[in-house]
Amino acid sequence: MGSLDTRRLIVCRHGERCDFCFSTHRFHWLDKAIDEAGRYQPFNLNLPRNLPKRRGGYDSFRHDTPLTEMGYLQAKLIGRAFRDREIKPHHVFVSPSLRCIQTAIGILKGMNENHTKLHIEPGLFEWMRFCRNVAPSWLTVDECLAAGYPVYQDYIPVVKETELNMNESLIDFYDRSHLVSKTLLSRYPTGNLLFVAHGATLDTCTRQLCGEAPRSNEEFFEIVQKTPYLSSIEARQTGAEQFEIIGTPVPPLAHSANAAYDSQYLTTPGYANNTDTL
Amino acid sequence: MGSLDTRRLIVCRHGERCDFCFSTHRFHWLDKAIDEAGRYQPFNLNLPRNLPKRRGGYDSFRHDTPLTEMGYLQAKLIGRAFRDREIKPHHVFVSPSLRCIQTAIGILKGMNENHTKLHIEPGLFEWMRFCRNVAPSWLTVDECLAAGYPVYQDYIPVVKETELNMNESLIDFYDRSHLVSKTLLSRYPTGNLLFVAHGATLDTCTRQLCGEAPRSNEEFFEIVQKTPYLSSIEARQTGAEQFEIIGTPVPPLAHSANAAYDSQYLTTPGYANNTDTL
Repeated sequence: MGSLDTRRLIVCRHGERCDFCFSTHRFHWLDKAIDEAGRYQPFNLNLPRNLPKRRGGYDSFRHDTPLTEMGYLQAKLIGRAFRDREIKPHHVFVSPSLRCIQTAIGILKGMNENHTKLHIEPGLFEWMRFCRNVAPSWLTVDECLAAGYPVYQDYIPVVKETELNMNESLIDFYDRSHLVSKTLLSRYPTGNLLFVAHGATLDTCTRQLCGEAPRSNEEFFEIVQKTPYLSSIEARQTGAEQFEIIGTPVPPLAHSANAAYDSQYLTTPGYANNTDTL
Repeated sequence: MGSLDTRRLIVCRHGERCDFCFSTHRFHWLDKAIDEAGRYQPFNLNLPRNLPKRRGGYDSFRHDTPLTEMGYLQAKLIGRAFRDREIKPHHVFVSPSLRCIQTAIGILKGMNENHTKLHIEPGLFEWMRFCRNVAPSWLTVDECLAAGYPVYQDYIPVVKETELNMNESLIDFYDRSHLVSKTLLSRYPTGNLLFVAHGATLDTCTRQLCGEAPRSNEEFFEIVQKTPYLSSIEARQTGAEQFEIIGTPVPPLAHSANAAYDSQYLTTPGYANNTDTL
């Protein structure tokens, strides 16, 4: 258990999202995956076989996307790498986004940690400006439990859902993220903390903690674009109130894309010139 | 078990290859993954954790690449889809390439078929011109068994390794592939056959079987380029000697790419402009 010199805060991004993978300018993935009888029918093997039940029905996944199958594997690979390197997170906090909850579960599965539970922390949600004026809507704790997700029922968040501000500035977002890191590190004074959240979180939850100022908009967007799925960063405690970024605690995870196969290529002469394959 | 009207030949491509994913114009993945002491040290979480032992040592993987972790998952997803659709291959034949053997194992794992064994068929190897004058070198049956791969020891191949011709023309390749399909369908007169081989195999093992002529070079390359990992095609028997292509037996599998994360983006000002991330 974390003495001062070994105490770590590890922050991870979630895995591959269904919407980014399957929605195009022509259609939203859900519109293609729900049949006329209102049943979910995955049209691609990388879509989840089943979706958790939630009060808003399937339509709620439109603004709270699940992971793809690959996304879940990405999470398990990172978890296995933590385990290989004997990195044990004692307290796990997740953004309430479904993709983050599912990623955290994949990480724990990869670590073979069957008894660790998740603290759902709305303060770890992404920059509110990324919501594009649609208020977030997440699974309730009861819905998580019904889906078999191991979440704490009595956790008191640092930032409540109702305290999130749709017009949050970038500085506000850095300050909110820093408040979460600082408060949780003080509430849980021993052991390693793992945050599973969004691309920007790697920076926003560690930046001020390590004594730096929030970034400019330009730098921020640059950083977010350079943060692939399951990126992770480790900040280590070097003094009573001092933290330092050590780097990524595990090797990176890179893989190539795979297009959808269309068997008409084999049977229709000239068909192979068609290029729209995903 | 296959009566005439339900008998199927299913042909699949292997999954994501380590070399295509990790070798660049600057280095071969193996050169980066073998340390000075000659030990294998995966530098990315998508590389296999361990490699099977083989007589030529690690260097043999240079021309006989293993699957990536994602490649193995792709295979399991296809196997699960076969199982969901109650597609049962009674006889499984694989190209001797390691990536094909590992893919077949992933498919069987996804199907929950723990007792099915693989027939290693050199006649299913890819077009010899793709070897670029390097003679193929595969795991021996004993090496497969030592690695825990469930292969038949006494299978007599349709085409022996020594019968493969380094200067094979495209027509020769179509004829070899057709010979394999025809011979195996006649040797195994009942049940479904599954071939796990290469991109071109989907066409070359079914084309003449379904009464079509081999393709031109131009059409061939177009088709190969349009055959992603784990593409699969089903030909169904419609008469004593007649087969017809039905299409792909399962939904397609599409996913996006993921770049390697470089944590220096967070700590080095201006570093994010560097673009070489895989």
